[in-house]
Amino acid sequence: MGPHPAVAAIRLAVRRVLNDILAEHGRTPGRLSPDERSSSPLVLVACSGGADSMALASALAFEAPRAGLRAGGVTVDHGLQAGSDLRAAEVASRLRELGLNPVESVAVTVGRDGGPEAAARDARYAALDAAAERRRAAAVLLGHTRDDQAETVLLGLARGSGIRSLSGMAAVSGADGRYRRPFLQLDRQTARTACMVQSLPVWDDPHNTDPAYTRSRLRHEGLPALEKALGKGVVEALARTAQLSRDDADALDAWAGKAAAGVRDADGRLECAALNDLPPAVRRRVLRRAAIEAGAPAGSLFARHIEEVDRLITGWRGQGAINLPGRVVARRQGGRLVIRQG
Amino acid sequence: MGPHPAVAAIRLAVRRVLNDILAEHGRTPGRLSPDERSSSPLVLVACSGGADSMALASALAFEAPRAGLRAGGVTVDHGLQAGSDLRAAEVASRLRELGLNPVESVAVTVGRDGGPEAAARDARYAALDAAAERRRAAAVLLGHTRDDQAETVLLGLARGSGIRSLSGMAAVSGADGRYRRPFLQLDRQTARTACMVQSLPVWDDPHNTDPAYTRSRLRHEGLPALEKALGKGVVEALARTAQLSRDDADALDAWAGKAAAGVRDADGRLECAALNDLPPAVRRRVLRRAAIEAGAPAGSLFARHIEEVDRLITGWRGQGAINLPGRVVARRQGGRLVIRQG
Repeated sequence: MGPHPAVAAIRLAVRRVLNDILAEHGRTPGRLSPDERSSSPLVLVACSGGADSMALASALAFEAPRAGLRAGGVTVDHGLQAGSDLRAAEVASRLRELGLNPVESVAVTVGRDGGPEAAARDARYAALDAAAERRRAAAVLLGHTRDDQAETVLLGLARGSGIRSLSGMAAVSGADGRYRRPFLQLDRQTARTACMVQSLPVWDDPHNTDPAYTRSRLRHEGLPALEKALGKGVVEALARTAQLSRDDADALDAWAGKAAAGVRDADGRLECAALNDLPPAVRRRVLRRAAIEAGAPAGSLFARHIEEVDRLITGWRGQGAINLPGRVVARRQGGRLVIRQG
Repeated sequence: MGPHPAVAAIRLAVRRVLNDILAEHGRTPGRLSPDERSSSPLVLVACSGGADSMALASALAFEAPRAGLRAGGVTVDHGLQAGSDLRAAEVASRLRELGLNPVESVAVTVGRDGGPEAAARDARYAALDAAAERRRAAAVLLGHTRDDQAETVLLGLARGSGIRSLSGMAAVSGADGRYRRPFLQLDRQTARTACMVQSLPVWDDPHNTDPAYTRSRLRHEGLPALEKALGKGVVEALARTAQLSRDDADALDAWAGKAAAGVRDADGRLECAALNDLPPAVRRRVLRRAAIEAGAPAGSLFARHIEEVDRLITGWRGQGAINLPGRVVARRQGGRLVIRQG
């Protein structure tokens, strides 16, 4: 008798990603002798102790030796709740019980930049990056599910800043493609079921149900209401939107990259007439890129800023200079668009 | 003392669209003598009697004579409720009271194709098209607001079929750009307020609050829950997403149109190697276009169909023919992709 369908599903998802990692290292899957193992690539799992990442850790522990890879784990203690250090130690010991080695618990200090959720995320990824480099890991697996992806798309939608922000989380991201998300097509319930049938204890982060957090409100109120109105396929539709939007945004960025060179005069200044001939979607990307190159911080540059600069091209009626974030100024001068700091 | 801000807002929105229409007819805004008026372009408003389209009718009645345009109205009796004929007659008489002329009430028979909402919409637009042609109207104004746009984006999101379905309703659409939506950037509350302060009686379509309708559930449950989770800016963000997605989809469609010619051999067959070199977003559009040209009905062709055809290019491992809607079959034959009916 094979494993429970949920366990089979999480293992298949991890096996696919491990095969990708093996191929990138010029290896083929297969068990190794103890001698060979010590030099085989190491794959880490980032584990909070919640159902998603515990399921991921269990699948990695099962699949890695069969693939000829070493498997380890990292848990991050954010220090945001009393006793979080004890919890992190407990998660680490569960990871060791699964057979992962090495296992680390890393304590971080969470700052305040960008709000509590962003600050915790920044601290977590910095710790994971450091752990991956310290251990020379080939990859770090993250337990984000299709449900997390759907929530991320809705959070991006709320920014209203275009299709890049609808593209959610990538299956492969980070320096050298370090981060991998094997569960991005898998629903959260499958991960929960896999933990249950494997008798894995899981920990529910109280932040996940705290209505003070946007993502938690979205998970427990926003998405269920949307599913009630639009039907059960919403999560899948949002995840598919993420993938399609990502590909579209990549293609348009590539186009804008090529177009940017063709709209400059001999002195490198942007020519308004050439800009005007570009499709609006490409022109706005060229303008955004030019503003960032001039020193505007990408995170503070909104769609409305770019629209205003765009009107210097498409709706020219002698308007004055446009102030952008980072003390960058855009102005039209004799058929040229000048974007610079100061 | 000027008009109430809500009335000023609806009039400004209509004035901008009327100025566009004048410019397209080579005219400038300004009052006309009675003689000149009889030959000036006619603008119709489609009016259900609800707040949005009554506000639109009132603004058109105010602005059209000042711009030098004639203004008329059409109301459609869908025949779906007892007494709908009396209601339509009442709406028509209100439009006449506003000073619109000509005013028509048109009865239609609603079919069943595509569900009740789609069938009613199809019948309504057919009647509006016919009225516009009968009256040789320069344009037909529609009362869709930013809130309607936000709902349309969410309905498109639920299909999960990519950014074209996120692009909502266009400000200009239909044959020769016949339909114009002056209120697409205006919120529903402004239209309601404008009716109230002008003492215009409005009729609330019971369909709009009937939870049997997807749009009604979205309006009264889905969107409010999303606003509660994500903040009050959601409607605006969705409307902005619509505009950005539309421009992006247009640019990518144009790219795919050009690319489609470059990936065919001398016999017009699609070359797999050339397709493989395209960005995924462009390749999928080329494939979709080829499937539609081969006879697949666009409305039944989903993202998953195109993904499967795409794997004949990017994930070739000898798989068989792919069946598409409309008895269209896609298969790989000796480095060529053959898509045809039968």
